[in-house]
Amino acid sequence: MCGIFGAYSFSGEDVVKKIYYGLYALQHRGQEGAGIAVSNGKNIYSYKGLGLVSEVFSKEVINSLRGQVGIGHVRYSTTGGTFVENCQPFIVNSTLGNLAIAHNGDILNSHILREELEKQGHIFTSSTDSEVIAHLLVKELLRTGDIIRSIEEVSKKIVGAYSLVILYNNSLIAVRDPYGFKPLCIGKDEKDNYYISSESCGLDVINGELIRDVSPGEIIIINRNGIETYRIEENPGGSTCMFEYVYFARPDSIIDGISVYNVRRRLGKVLAKEEPCEGDLVSPVPDSGVTSAIGYSEELGIPYYEALIKNRYVGRTFILPSQEERDLAVRLKLNPVKPIIEGKRVILIDDSIVRGTTSKRIVNIVRKAGAKEVHLRVGSPRIISPCYYGIDMPTKEELIASSKSLEEIRRYINVDSLGYLSVQGLIRGIGREDLCLACVTGRYPTDVSCKFCCK
Amino acid sequence: MCGIFGAYSFSGEDVVKKIYYGLYALQHRGQEGAGIAVSNGKNIYSYKGLGLVSEVFSKEVINSLRGQVGIGHVRYSTTGGTFVENCQPFIVNSTLGNLAIAHNGDILNSHILREELEKQGHIFTSSTDSEVIAHLLVKELLRTGDIIRSIEEVSKKIVGAYSLVILYNNSLIAVRDPYGFKPLCIGKDEKDNYYISSESCGLDVINGELIRDVSPGEIIIINRNGIETYRIEENPGGSTCMFEYVYFARPDSIIDGISVYNVRRRLGKVLAKEEPCEGDLVSPVPDSGVTSAIGYSEELGIPYYEALIKNRYVGRTFILPSQEERDLAVRLKLNPVKPIIEGKRVILIDDSIVRGTTSKRIVNIVRKAGAKEVHLRVGSPRIISPCYYGIDMPTKEELIASSKSLEEIRRYINVDSLGYLSVQGLIRGIGREDLCLACVTGRYPTDVSCKFCCK
Amino acid sequence: MCGIFGAYSFSGEDVVKKIYYGLYALQHRGQEGAGIAVSNGKNIYSYKGLGLVSEVFSKEVINSLRGQVGIGHVRYSTTGGTFVENCQPFIVNSTLGNLAIAHNGDILNSHILREELEKQGHIFTSSTDSEVIAHLLVKELLRTGDIIRSIEEVSKKIVGAYSLVILYNNSLIAVRDPYGFKPLCIGKDEKDNYYISSESCGLDVINGELIRDVSPGEIIIINRNGIETYRIEENPGGSTCMFEYVYFARPDSIIDGISVYNVRRRLGKVLAKEEPCEGDLVSPVPDSGVTSAIGYSEELGIPYYEALIKNRYVGRTFILPSQEERDLAVRLKLNPVKPIIEGKRVILIDDSIVRGTTSKRIVNIVRKAGAKEVHLRVGSPRIISPCYYGIDMPTKEELIASSKSLEEIRRYINVDSLGYLSVQGLIRGIGREDLCLACVTGRYPTDVSCKFCCK
Amino acid sequence: MCGIFGAYSFSGEDVVKKIYYGLYALQHRGQEGAGIAVSNGKNIYSYKGLGLVSEVFSKEVINSLRGQVGIGHVRYSTTGGTFVENCQPFIVNSTLGNLAIAHNGDILNSHILREELEKQGHIFTSSTDSEVIAHLLVKELLRTGDIIRSIEEVSKKIVGAYSLVILYNNSLIAVRDPYGFKPLCIGKDEKDNYYISSESCGLDVINGELIRDVSPGEIIIINRNGIETYRIEENPGGSTCMFEYVYFARPDSIIDGISVYNVRRRLGKVLAKEEPCEGDLVSPVPDSGVTSAIGYSEELGIPYYEALIKNRYVGRTFILPSQEERDLAVRLKLNPVKPIIEGKRVILIDDSIVRGTTSKRIVNIVRKAGAKEVHLRVGSPRIISPCYYGIDMPTKEELIASSKSLEEIRRYINVDSLGYLSVQGLIRGIGREDLCLACVTGRYPTDVSCKFCCK
Ligand SMILES: Nc1ncnc2c1ncn2[C@@H]1O[C@H](COP(=O)(O)OP(=O)(O)O)[C@@H](O)[C@H]1O
Ligand SMILES: Nc1ncnc2c1ncn2[C@@H]1O[C@H](COP(=O)(O)OP(=O)(O)O)[C@@H](O)[C@H]1O
Ligand SMILES: Nc1ncnc2c1ncn2[C@@H]1O[C@H](COP(=O)(O)OP(=O)(O)O)[C@@H](O)[C@H]1O
Ligand SMILES: Nc1ncnc2c1ncn2[C@@H]1O[C@H](COP(=O)(O)OP(=O)(O)O)[C@@H](O)[C@H]1O
Ligand code: SF4
Ligand code: SF4
Ligand code: SF4
Ligand code: SF4
Ligand SMILES: [Mg+2]
Ligand SMILES: [Mg+2]
Ligand SMILES: [Mg+2]
Ligand SMILES: [Mg+2]
Repeated sequence: MCGIFGAYSFSGEDVVKKIYYGLYALQHRGQEGAGIAVSNGKNIYSYKGLGLVSEVFSKEVINSLRGQVGIGHVRYSTTGGTFVENCQPFIVNSTLGNLAIAHNGDILNSHILREELEKQGHIFTSSTDSEVIAHLLVKELLRTGDIIRSIEEVSKKIVGAYSLVILYNNSLIAVRDPYGFKPLCIGKDEKDNYYISSESCGLDVINGELIRDVSPGEIIIINRNGIETYRIEENPGGSTCMFEYVYFARPDSIIDGISVYNVRRRLGKVLAKEEPCEGDLVSPVPDSGVTSAIGYSEELGIPYYEALIKNRYVGRTFILPSQEERDLAVRLKLNPVKPIIEGKRVILIDDSIVRGTTSKRIVNIVRKAGAKEVHLRVGSPRIISPCYYGIDMPTKEELIASSKSLEEIRRYINVDSLGYLSVQGLIRGIGREDLCLACVTGRYPTDVSCKFCCK
Repeated sequence: MCGIFGAYSFSGEDVVKKIYYGLYALQHRGQEGAGIAVSNGKNIYSYKGLGLVSEVFSKEVINSLRGQVGIGHVRYSTTGGTFVENCQPFIVNSTLGNLAIAHNGDILNSHILREELEKQGHIFTSSTDSEVIAHLLVKELLRTGDIIRSIEEVSKKIVGAYSLVILYNNSLIAVRDPYGFKPLCIGKDEKDNYYISSESCGLDVINGELIRDVSPGEIIIINRNGIETYRIEENPGGSTCMFEYVYFARPDSIIDGISVYNVRRRLGKVLAKEEPCEGDLVSPVPDSGVTSAIGYSEELGIPYYEALIKNRYVGRTFILPSQEERDLAVRLKLNPVKPIIEGKRVILIDDSIVRGTTSKRIVNIVRKAGAKEVHLRVGSPRIISPCYYGIDMPTKEELIASSKSLEEIRRYINVDSLGYLSVQGLIRGIGREDLCLACVTGRYPTDVSCKFCCK
Repeated sequence: MCGIFGAYSFSGEDVVKKIYYGLYALQHRGQEGAGIAVSNGKNIYSYKGLGLVSEVFSKEVINSLRGQVGIGHVRYSTTGGTFVENCQPFIVNSTLGNLAIAHNGDILNSHILREELEKQGHIFTSSTDSEVIAHLLVKELLRTGDIIRSIEEVSKKIVGAYSLVILYNNSLIAVRDPYGFKPLCIGKDEKDNYYISSESCGLDVINGELIRDVSPGEIIIINRNGIETYRIEENPGGSTCMFEYVYFARPDSIIDGISVYNVRRRLGKVLAKEEPCEGDLVSPVPDSGVTSAIGYSEELGIPYYEALIKNRYVGRTFILPSQEERDLAVRLKLNPVKPIIEGKRVILIDDSIVRGTTSKRIVNIVRKAGAKEVHLRVGSPRIISPCYYGIDMPTKEELIASSKSLEEIRRYINVDSLGYLSVQGLIRGIGREDLCLACVTGRYPTDVSCKFCCK
Repeated sequence: MCGIFGAYSFSGEDVVKKIYYGLYALQHRGQEGAGIAVSNGKNIYSYKGLGLVSEVFSKEVINSLRGQVGIGHVRYSTTGGTFVENCQPFIVNSTLGNLAIAHNGDILNSHILREELEKQGHIFTSSTDSEVIAHLLVKELLRTGDIIRSIEEVSKKIVGAYSLVILYNNSLIAVRDPYGFKPLCIGKDEKDNYYISSESCGLDVINGELIRDVSPGEIIIINRNGIETYRIEENPGGSTCMFEYVYFARPDSIIDGISVYNVRRRLGKVLAKEEPCEGDLVSPVPDSGVTSAIGYSEELGIPYYEALIKNRYVGRTFILPSQEERDLAVRLKLNPVKPIIEGKRVILIDDSIVRGTTSKRIVNIVRKAGAKEVHLRVGSPRIISPCYYGIDMPTKEELIASSKSLEEIRRYINVDSLGYLSVQGLIRGIGREDLCLACVTGRYPTDVSCKFCCK
């Protein structure tokens, strides 16, 4: 996934802390690494590291960076391994100009583009798409000398999902791919500072106001000349990732004009209509199931309880015994509230099922806590195909719904009944149709063949 | 506050990881430091440090400790400053025997006892009550040679709140003060390992089963001779801290036979009866207000919404600008979901109000997000007197309810209406009468004069 | 060993950096840990840690400490294990007054004293002699209320070697045991700051001037009333450790009026007279053999060469393969200069032989580098008895000279000839007779029976 | 400067620890950073960091790397700032093959080459010459497909000093520039492992044997086919840096068949003949002056003393007061042995004078210690021109000898007499004529105009 953020101050204010707080609010989009790059008018200075925003940036580091324009990135662990080299923004300090790029999404044909570039003598030091985009951009810049034209040319070559913030000399540029897979929005504050953020919650934290979303295929450039907007020619129509609403984004964000919180509550209500259930209480699998569970409970008039408490100190590192590893991991994270479970028919609500192994473990915990019956309702359709657009998912074989029938899944997870939201219900709940639904339908908005061609 | 944990294996199993996981589950009781002490039959080995359990204990450290009996502690920042010397357990490796002590609570007369000991030539290296208790215990041990009699003697001298786990040679000992201020329970698992834990959630995580709570004034000793129980003579009758139910304990814990989760939900319902309100939605101030808010909403039939989203990555360290510090801190932590607030009459539920400054900031955030009206209902009575039993509270002057009337508080916090739970409602909601209610009534169960005598 | 330092400013200057630099210069006396304690007039503040002075004290730490009187310590690894708890100064912040103690030496009967104190209920948190001395001092202070009388009383009880710096409220006190085992001197600078230092090189670095050495059995107290000196009654006559001159002290120090550098050069000359040798070149085993080798070479007119180069980056931590560990360690540290060794008769000079294993390895390195003959001359007599006064030595069994004859040692080390300095030669070279020579004669200046009594 | 090391095992042994120890022995060539890259047959794995070898590589890191061929680098702080990005080896993992490069020296025209490459779209992530060489190599590899031909082509383009170790797929390659500025040698051990090292002391430490030096203009490739050697066509004749003998290399190394130790001793003797002096003692400025001082003393028959003791714990970080910074730094590092200086005529020997400020401070220290006269003799000629070949030197203006006469320098440094070695004496002392002497003659062996062209 990853989260990106950009800031430009017309008043010449230092934007480093703004970026820092923005990344803080986007931390749920990536906990593996973080980076900030700012331009002081002449050079780009940057700092990146592995870990949470608060771990990467000490007070000293923040105070050592200074600039009135800059970008930032929080990194999620997908391809590329946990190396600081793979942290973003990717920086180019060259005599041709200075460039920093931060990327959210996944370029399907990056390995092909990379190989071509390597054949031309280009050298890569990371395994990020950012670096491939940087190389392509610099190549075009050499030819055209114009950053907007260069971005347009590069976007013709790259296939996939990309929301980008680019720092070019003293300009801040935002790019959202023509499909609009990943969210990206623009905001401003009272002091005439402009911001680009993966989600609107990144604007709230710095007292910014959401202006609007960057449109699919739009390029926005902010510099001393003001704000200009361009459009990448080929515009296939939007297909924004439905999973952002269902799971990934923060509930307090607004994506393309639609409140994530309201979507989740509505999904709970639609689910209740499509897959009602008899039971004594409705409980979420926290945190992702909370809001839908409230909607589900309200729709059916069954009381809402938190039957599972999530340990909020479960971090990325704790010491597991080699055996029973995963079981214990789930138990450390989620603890049942036995007194409200005992002897009850529990209806659990979660946002989605991927492999099914975690769900199975959770159901087991609830059963052991004394539930009479355990029912599971899922706030999204069956995931049957992997995502190629930047959401980290297992291979098709590991997706439980790609091969197993509803009944087989029910038996595997060991619930008394199981119900998924329908694709139509999902679209209704979200309230828009220009969505990517590939992982639940198998129909990909882009050509995905290059994913298989030559790796 | 602090959390304590103990483990004894009759089967000779190594208990270090058990203690580690137990502390993990008790982490909400203290995030400033952690320590583990284990006995390998001859010596006590220990490791302590500042920070979260997962930060203090690396894999290497955990693997380097080994023993079939041991204790652990998580530290909350009260008196004593943030020094590793103040981390517990406090260890005595002496020719008289080995001793480790971990303490939850506050000894009112510890400064007097300490001064007396110093006058006799005793030397202290920390500012913890644990060390005072250790000195007293060793003195009695020298006289009596008997650990139980020594504990009985010491408990006659110390006034205040103390739940203790003690590692003495190869015995594990649990002590709960005669008032039973702080919770303490005993459990076991299938492999005949016994555990002592501040809260029952510490047992769940290691697949242990809650046997029962340690009674006020009870001493339990576990060693190769089995399990024995003793009673400290003077037994004034229990007065368990009501705040454990209201705020401090984890909702999935059971304290003295009563489910914390159920208490909180009931408190919400009682509050709804005592202080009903007209509004469009009920929302908690997360996390402490969540469960009462659900109860409140259910009782009045007003829909439950999460109008404020808590950033779960807000840790102990982040970089704040010198100005507007506190305001920003609250905004980084709690973000409003504007689409559900705008134009609405919002009823906020929180567990308690201490200084009132945070509540004021939160109300301001909700107002700025567009609320038409903001009402606040509080799941506990007005706090009018400081706690002397280990809950970190400001001085009487800083407690907003100690000097201001309801209407004055309402105006300060800037809500349209304000309602507190009554003391009777609190007792009813918790469902027991042997409670400490000192901070909401001013009537302290013990003599508190020594708090003022000579400091 | 350990090194100690104290500073008192009559002009009210901050002395923290002075102590820091003083410890820096005494670093050769201990590399395992360091600590500083200063008094700001009301409390004692301290900071200690494992590692080198430069590693323990960051700029922030140094700037956070402040006081016009203070003491410091560098720790050598002897008994007690590598725990930060064993770092000094040992601090007592009590209602009776504040005390910090740093100790160089070894108290022979500390385990007995400790046991007695434990029987009276005293609790120890470290395994240092400092803590035992602190307990005894506090006990006496309680009785007498007078620090000087207390020190006198304590010194009657403790047997062994002790140079002490004590910070008591706002006084700086220096104590040297009646035997004067360990060096200790007093100095001042132009700004009326007074210093106590283990060696005079600690004064040089802060532009201080050596006033004189603290006499055996002397107590010096410096406070607002000026400087006073007292004498511990029983004065057995000095027996300063000869090994300070031979090996431990820095060559640029002056101990009890005698230059260490001059002693070492003289020892080389006396050795040349006592144990002359035919050869093509004289080479030291660096660094300890350098100065004597120069003297030896000069006396016999055989050219001086550095046949072995010491890697100055060999620190305390490097990764050794499990096998051949020690061999490689020596090779990493000392590398032969083959071109000057090949075909030559090499006379090696070292300061002393303890186990003989390192010497054997070094000789092997020189032989492999092509030496025709290797001769070894040692600048001190055979070590036949362990030291009980603070120099870390192996047990008697491991001392090669305690059981092997000269010829047996020669064969073990594999040299063509071997010669040691005589005890008389040593005394002549040092130029004083009031020396401890116990490790080379077996005659201990104090009763050492308690070392064996009950451990 | 920097130091480089390479290892190839024909027996398939793991070479990581060999490289680690090799770098350990080369540590004097660079203390700012270190890196190792090894090939496991398919990929190149690497680890780099800032600090000393022992700080950068933990046991875990060393154990995590594995390969039978690899290279390493220790970094000296020259251009490029202290960033981990500038640590070497520079790595290229590409579909065309894997490449790692470590470089010692300075490419004069690298900024021009870099700019050209940037104009062709190449992107740089560090400011090292290594990266420029890597780009050029990859470009040639694309054209020719042959690594040797590629190196030959690249060496036609780059002007300056370069000793290189290259890891290409599974081959180890050593390159020394046609002038042979920097040393580079090849060795082997008993187990048929081959090594490349900046200095022969790197071979000693792993029990390797020096085979011979890599010749100026030679390329050596080691892989499963054995060892082959090639010659870069244009061979201008050697001009090895005289400063390697005089100052930089370790005395126990042999460079191009000549022992550094013997050179330094001879330089002392030649200096004694050219610039004799009357005095009571000869003393080095340690460490660099030690060996020449011995030669000087021997030649004139004036006794050799160590009048200045160097604190061996002076590391890269210690806290200096803002005022008097530099003065204190020198005093912390070098302490006079007053008893041997007082009232004496001291002849100091140092290897060279750059700015003169340190010499001035040292002379001041010796004077304050009571010297009657201070004379300075320098084991190399006056430095009048900056080095462009990788030795970090100040600008011409800051070189004291570039503008001041001998008498002016003498007065500035405040010595009673001053004498430098002549250029002829230097050549005689080293014993070869194919030397670079540019910094002492102003005659550069290569065109240096590009250093000034366009920066
Ligand atoms: N601050 C927040 N408050 C509430 N929900 C959040 C917050 N940040 C992220 N989320 C939501 O948390 C969910 C993921 O949490 P959770 O289900 O506990 O983890 P996972 O399922 O990945 O183990 C997502 O739905 C995300 O929208
Ligand atoms: N894992 C958990 N899940 C839910 N609630 C928890 C958990 N751990 C602690 N709590 C509750 O969280 C509340 C404190 O959180 P919160 O209100 O967010 O912090 P604060 O009010 O201290 O800023 C307490 O009521 C405590 O019982
Ligand atoms: N700064 C210094 N300069 C020269 N010698 C020193 C210095 N500091 C300590 N010494 C001397 O170094 C010797 C110890 O070094 P060395 O022989 O290399 O180590 P060891 O024998 O302990 O392995 C001692 O004789 C000590 O006096
Ligand atoms: N292990 C070693 N033993 C002796 N000399 C060394 C060693 N390593 C490097 N040197 C020499 O030390 C000299 C540099 O040390 P020094 O003069 O103390 O430092 P600087 O002059 O850079 O402050 C060089 O001449 C180098 O050849
Ligand atoms: S495939 Fe699924 S997860 Fe991926 S972008 Fe499309 S909807 Fe989102
Ligand atoms: S005073 Fe209040 S917080 Fe303290 S123990 Fe009593 S009820 Fe609990
Ligand atoms: S026994 Fe030896 S080492 Fe110990 S104090 Fe006496 S002379 Fe020094
Ligand atoms: S200019 Fe001087 S320092 Fe540089 S390479 Fe030539 S001789 Fe060496
Ligand atoms: Mg989830
Ligand atoms: Mg709260
Ligand atoms: Mg030695
Ligand atoms: Mg030097």
